Amino acid sequence: MKVIGIDPGYAIIGYAIVDVEKNRRKLLKYGTIETSPKIEFPDRICKIYNEMNDVLKNFTPDFASIESLLFQNNQKTAIKVAEARGVIILSLKNFGVKIFELTPLQLKCSLTGYGKATKQQIILMTKKILNLKETIKTDDAADACALALSGSLFINNVN
Amino acid sequence: MKVIGIDPGYAIIGYAIVDVEKNRRKLLKYGTIETSPKIEFPDRICKIYNEMNDVLKNFTPDFASIESLLFQNNQKTAIKVAEARGVIILSLKNFGVKIFELTPLQLKCSLTGYGKATKQQIILMTKKILNLKETIKTDDAADACALALSGSLFINNVN
Repeated sequence: MKVIGIDPGYAIIGYAIVDVEKNRRKLLKYGTIETSPKIEFPDRICKIYNEMNDVLKNFTPDFASIESLLFQNNQKTAIKVAEARGVIILSLKNFGVKIFELTPLQLKCSLTGYGKATKQQIILMTKKILNLKETIKTDDAADACALALSGSLFINNVN
Repeated sequence: MKVIGIDPGYAIIGYAIVDVEKNRRKLLKYGTIETSPKIEFPDRICKIYNEMNDVLKNFTPDFASIESLLFQNNQKTAIKVAEARGVIILSLKNFGVKIFELTPLQLKCSLTGYGKATKQQIILMTKKILNLKETIKTDDAADACALALSGSLFINNVN
């Protein structure tokens, strides 16, 4: 079973694919999809869709674990993130990937057993469970690793 | 030149296509794309994308006039509308349709010259300019007709 974790956005989208076999979890790949503010928003939407399609084609995940959107102060940004999230959902659906939405609370609880865990604690547990030596390069990719891992634990409990 | 007006949503999406030749404006088609709350949200997103593709394939509009999202009290609904709007933008972009976003204020001013015009005044002006005899069946389709018309006036001024 393969789980893709996705940290949604429109400027930077983090993704990570974790392979699960019994109790062994292995990080296959992590990275980001990035779009420049210099191109028009509809073109950024297209780029996100096309690159997400490429990732799904290459890694054929079974499940996706994607963060639910919580509203921040900047509603204009939130709308754009949601628009980008729409095409990510479309791409996942086209590749037959079953989608799970996780709230930040579910993510924190599943990885640390503590709903008020800090970002650093989350990253620490993610690295420990996935047995990673290296530091994950960007925040968005680190969030995606945590989401993929948390998703894999959550899905195991559901199934 | 053909302009499609789109009233975004995820349960009901209104659309209308107006053909413009010099100063003559003719309504070619209006309708709605509807998705049931009984199906899962990712499936609703797919249905919206596929049906929007069908509309664009059939009517080949040059421009799209789509309402900008303003936040309401229900943020959960607003997120879903924005997610659906993302796949509508993707569909438009794939068919090479140039997108214009109109705020409710721009729409009202372009049709009535008055920023505080009521919905009824907007519908009245839309019917008058498009020379429509019949009542447009749904609110969403009526909004889409107003958007297509307003878009066509706006685009004429820009070009």
